[in-house]
Amino acid sequence: MKLKIETIRLDYINPFRISRNVTTSKENIIVKLSDGNITGLGEASADSFYGETNATVVQAVKKGFNLIKNEDPFELDRIYDILNKNLGSCRVAITALDIALHDLICKKLKMPVYKYYGLEPIKSKLTSFTIGIDTIPKIIEKTLEAKKYPYLKVKLGCKNDMDIAKAVMDNFKGKICFDANAGWTLNEAVKKISILAKYKPEFIEQPLPPVKVKDLKILKKHVRVPIIADESVVDRNDILPASEFADGINIKLAKCGGIREAFKMCVIAKSLGLKIMFGCRTESSILVTAAAHLGSMADYLDLDTNVLIKNDPYKGDVFDNGRITIIPGVPGLGVSKIK
Amino acid sequence: MKLKIETIRLDYINPFRISRNVTTSKENIIVKLSDGNITGLGEASADSFYGETNATVVQAVKKGFNLIKNEDPFELDRIYDILNKNLGSCRVAITALDIALHDLICKKLKMPVYKYYGLEPIKSKLTSFTIGIDTIPKIIEKTLEAKKYPYLKVKLGCKNDMDIAKAVMDNFKGKICFDANAGWTLNEAVKKISILAKYKPEFIEQPLPPVKVKDLKILKKHVRVPIIADESVVDRNDILPASEFADGINIKLAKCGGIREAFKMCVIAKSLGLKIMFGCRTESSILVTAAAHLGSMADYLDLDTNVLIKNDPYKGDVFDNGRITIIPGVPGLGVSKIK
Repeated sequence: MKLKIETIRLDYINPFRISRNVTTSKENIIVKLSDGNITGLGEASADSFYGETNATVVQAVKKGFNLIKNEDPFELDRIYDILNKNLGSCRVAITALDIALHDLICKKLKMPVYKYYGLEPIKSKLTSFTIGIDTIPKIIEKTLEAKKYPYLKVKLGCKNDMDIAKAVMDNFKGKICFDANAGWTLNEAVKKISILAKYKPEFIEQPLPPVKVKDLKILKKHVRVPIIADESVVDRNDILPASEFADGINIKLAKCGGIREAFKMCVIAKSLGLKIMFGCRTESSILVTAAAHLGSMADYLDLDTNVLIKNDPYKGDVFDNGRITIIPGVPGLGVSKIK
Repeated sequence: MKLKIETIRLDYINPFRISRNVTTSKENIIVKLSDGNITGLGEASADSFYGETNATVVQAVKKGFNLIKNEDPFELDRIYDILNKNLGSCRVAITALDIALHDLICKKLKMPVYKYYGLEPIKSKLTSFTIGIDTIPKIIEKTLEAKKYPYLKVKLGCKNDMDIAKAVMDNFKGKICFDANAGWTLNEAVKKISILAKYKPEFIEQPLPPVKVKDLKILKKHVRVPIIADESVVDRNDILPASEFADGINIKLAKCGGIREAFKMCVIAKSLGLKIMFGCRTESSILVTAAAHLGSMADYLDLDTNVLIKNDPYKGDVFDNGRITIIPGVPGLGVSKIK
């Protein structure tokens, strides 16, 4: 196998704010693994919350590639174990290599990734469209623009977030969920979730910081709205502990280690009676489409960042009015570069 | 797809006795699924303990086939859900169809089943060789014959089973495990396991009936030898409850629903910190080899019934002095009929 690394810059249509930061553009790492004439595509979206930078990602991808370049690319479990043991602190690099391997072997087999996993392709499956934190006039403007979508996810976790929630709900009648991105204290969460409950949200995502395990357990007893764990659940080892304070988990490929780990997490979460959500970071169509291939296993999809970007260099799944479709039958991820 | 059903009779070299029955021969159902020129092989080994007979199996296989014959055989999860919903009470029929589908699609892909699951083939991996319940002189004779094997599994759960254990251990110095096949009461189990502990067994399998959940939990607190749950764990839904009274689970393809269910059970069991054992019923090389393909995920193998049979019509994995090897690179299960 041969490795090629590139950097792409993704520019947001609107600056994107969550509880802990604001993003106007982001540089992601594209990983290309070639074997003969076939090339597999992978992507790394580093997140400083998990201690990742593009410099550490590039270093980890190179190190990982050197460890696996002579392995049989089909031995995904063995390769995952090697990468996990050696790049444990940079899961996003494992993800990029894992996705490129899946694209590569499924292109070799001339079958789509969803089919390789014994799954159906998703067809017009609902995804939430995200409204980032903003001023109230801007929130109203964004909500009116997003009226065409059946399902919104609203970012909270800031001082005036109850005003934001109200501004959205005054102008939107579809399904809704809220994401505090670990931005609340226990008391704040109890109070705010009781206010949000009247909007009958699908769920509240990560109300408290992941380190506040005790508080999360107390919170679960005080609220009736389902809680989805995001920052609290990185990989499969975090699912059983999270089942004590959450009703579901947010699986992100960029966070967990790739397609194979995400598939295993779905199997484990389902067996524990947890709901499954697929989320994303700032990602091009490579990462978003990779997640969408496993989409039939998810209860909730939140795979929309490629739509929030104005210069995605790739195209893959089809986003149409808040719904995602995987084009059936295309080998590998089915992602190609826009000319 | 086309379906063909056959019956084969497997004759034991020695009558095989466990706590609840004795077997001299057994009729299994062979399922053949053809698509074009390619045929996939599956097998059903009915067990009356789970309410299965060959008549119910044949009926269920036909019913299941009619429900899936026009499906894409690659959509294994969708097919499993259809079969599970409709043949829920006859898991052994689901297993036969699932294994035939795996053989079929992996032959189409020209890849072995282990490779399709991203796994390595097992190479000379230790399996236990089973000593059934018998008279003490016969136990001694069998143990001496089995001296060439590094690892024995001894069936207990009868009146004089401590004499059997002693007779084996007086004549054997290798690794050992014991299987009571749900044959003890709580008091009996506590007493007997404390005697067996001095032989330092790898584990004790299913000491109590699966319905005795409370007793199993009490037992776990009283013994230090690891407990493996067999009859208590049918499919993935039983793993979390079993984690409260067992250190590991015995996965049998004939019991759980096939290769796909077994793979998922391994993922779940590992995430709960449970050990994984692969076991078998009275089976030809079709069922035994199907399990061996996932063998790299198991901590303990007990895949030996094809060796206890004198007229196995099929050949698949290679059993050599208590060790199993999967021949690498052969498409599908790699099982063929002996001419």
